[in-house]
Amino acid sequence: MRLSQIGELGLIERLKRILDSQIIGDDTAPVNLGGSTVLLTCDTLVEDRHFKISYPPSAIGWKAISVNVSDVVANGGTPAYALISLVLPDVQVSFVEEVYLGVKKACEFYRCQVVGGNVSKGDKVCVDVFLVGETERFVGRRGAMEGDWVFVSGPLGDSRAGLELLLMEKKNYEDFELSLIERHLRPTARVDFAKHISKYANASMDISDGLSIDAHRLAQASGVRLNLFSKNIPISQELRSFCRKHGKDPLQYALLGGEDYQLLFTHPAGRFNPFLSMFHIGVVEKGQGVYLDNNPVEPEGFDHFRVLATSI
Amino acid sequence: MRLSQIGELGLIERLKRILDSQIIGDDTAPVNLGGSTVLLTCDTLVEDRHFKISYPPSAIGWKAISVNVSDVVANGGTPAYALISLVLPDVQVSFVEEVYLGVKKACEFYRCQVVGGNVSKGDKVCVDVFLVGETERFVGRRGAMEGDWVFVSGPLGDSRAGLELLLMEKKNYEDFELSLIERHLRPTARVDFAKHISKYANASMDISDGLSIDAHRLAQASGVRLNLFSKNIPISQELRSFCRKHGKDPLQYALLGGEDYQLLFTHPAGRFNPFLSMFHIGVVEKGQGVYLDNNPVEPEGFDHFRVLATSI
Repeated sequence: MRLSQIGELGLIERLKRILDSQIIGDDTAPVNLGGSTVLLTCDTLVEDRHFKISYPPSAIGWKAISVNVSDVVANGGTPAYALISLVLPDVQVSFVEEVYLGVKKACEFYRCQVVGGNVSKGDKVCVDVFLVGETERFVGRRGAMEGDWVFVSGPLGDSRAGLELLLMEKKNYEDFELSLIERHLRPTARVDFAKHISKYANASMDISDGLSIDAHRLAQASGVRLNLFSKNIPISQELRSFCRKHGKDPLQYALLGGEDYQLLFTHPAGRFNPFLSMFHIGVVEKGQGVYLDNNPVEPEGFDHFRVLATSI
Repeated sequence: MRLSQIGELGLIERLKRILDSQIIGDDTAPVNLGGSTVLLTCDTLVEDRHFKISYPPSAIGWKAISVNVSDVVANGGTPAYALISLVLPDVQVSFVEEVYLGVKKACEFYRCQVVGGNVSKGDKVCVDVFLVGETERFVGRRGAMEGDWVFVSGPLGDSRAGLELLLMEKKNYEDFELSLIERHLRPTARVDFAKHISKYANASMDISDGLSIDAHRLAQASGVRLNLFSKNIPISQELRSFCRKHGKDPLQYALLGGEDYQLLFTHPAGRFNPFLSMFHIGVVEKGQGVYLDNNPVEPEGFDHFRVLATSI
């Protein structure tokens, strides 16, 4: 049996069984070190899967850090230390230096520090980041309570539209198209939410594979049902323009598009913070699964081994 | 300019400059978390560079953990938590499961725990391990003092001979050949030395790229000269048999062969511990560089981007 037959999640289930692991599959692993809770996470960008070698190298470095910071923030932490493991073919030195300029910019922005790493030779570029974060209180995806409101931190679907635009390889892009491309190339992890999550959220994760599948993961881990309202799901002007131009449905992009790195979290309505860009997209109810305007939503989204055709 | 023109170390120097990093390039990065010193390290095994897909999968998992544990032990720590980032083509599920059985066995042996990871699709198998260790006292490669004795923790050169035997792909191997192959496939990190290093060593590192180049690194970081005695360098019976059979010089294997994952460390003679397999191979003197029986030794060894031809 090959990996493509069981998918990424099927593989992870099998590997967890081998390790007798109780890991629930949160964005980070909370561990105890010296009496405090530390968050560990890793995420990889692989050439021709997550990026093309023709992308701006600094964007590759920026994104490699950002996707990891997003995991730490999703669990209520702030990033502290990173290690970078590079696999590199015999590329131009300037390419690697520019990747690192992106890494540096991201680390300055998120206030974390690269403390080490490793370089190996390989056939494709692979940027693997390990990030260590600190937190007052770990918040995972299993704590959603009946009656909680469901929030996201910003517009969804932009990154997917940006990826499609990039792959069109047009000579000239309109301004709104460039914005969407930028959101795919240089997503921003929502560090502004770290304290709010740690202090108030009952459950939290980042939306890396698409709202539909990620909402299912949160619902399943918490043993609840999420009831979402389509009219409240935030959609950017740029995505609306894109969908108008190409005859597409923005809601589908918001539900199925991945890599936006917005946060999905739940807590009681009263904990709403007007200084953060919180969008109230639903409520937590008794039951299971995810519903949109009272219709069941399939757990569709990005699975590395099954639906690669929908990626690059 | 391409990577092959500046080599792995040249690249690392440039990347450190970009990050304004004071990192000296120890085996692990010591960081402060919750008031205690934590060691962070990562190391990758890449298909066709560090292993062939035909190797026993459990050995790949064992080695991926061991090489990281070796880094932590070299700096006086004990391993605690690991993350594993896998890049996988569409291989057999059983292959990945067997890799993980090797990971599990290693974690049980070294008493550490896999707490998370990540899976991506790619063209070649890549096993990237991130390891977090704990220590009472970090010991790096910069503290060697004049008058210290230089020690290694066990025989050198076996792994290199084992690799060469593996690549011969013989139908039948003699017993001593199988032992050498086993040392290449399943090196053991010297966790038995962790406390001794942390308590007594002035400088320490593991020998992953070969005694010659690694001794140079320790000498340079400490600003001292290492004077080694060839007759004291431990060489196994198996390596002697191999060299007799193939007309090779065992000392060359001990000096240039990498991946033995023995420890190289220094401290005053009086701190010798008779319960550990400590081999006194030299002394620390004023000056610079590495000398063998008073003749200068070139810093030769394994560099990922220059001398790949000498690897797989």
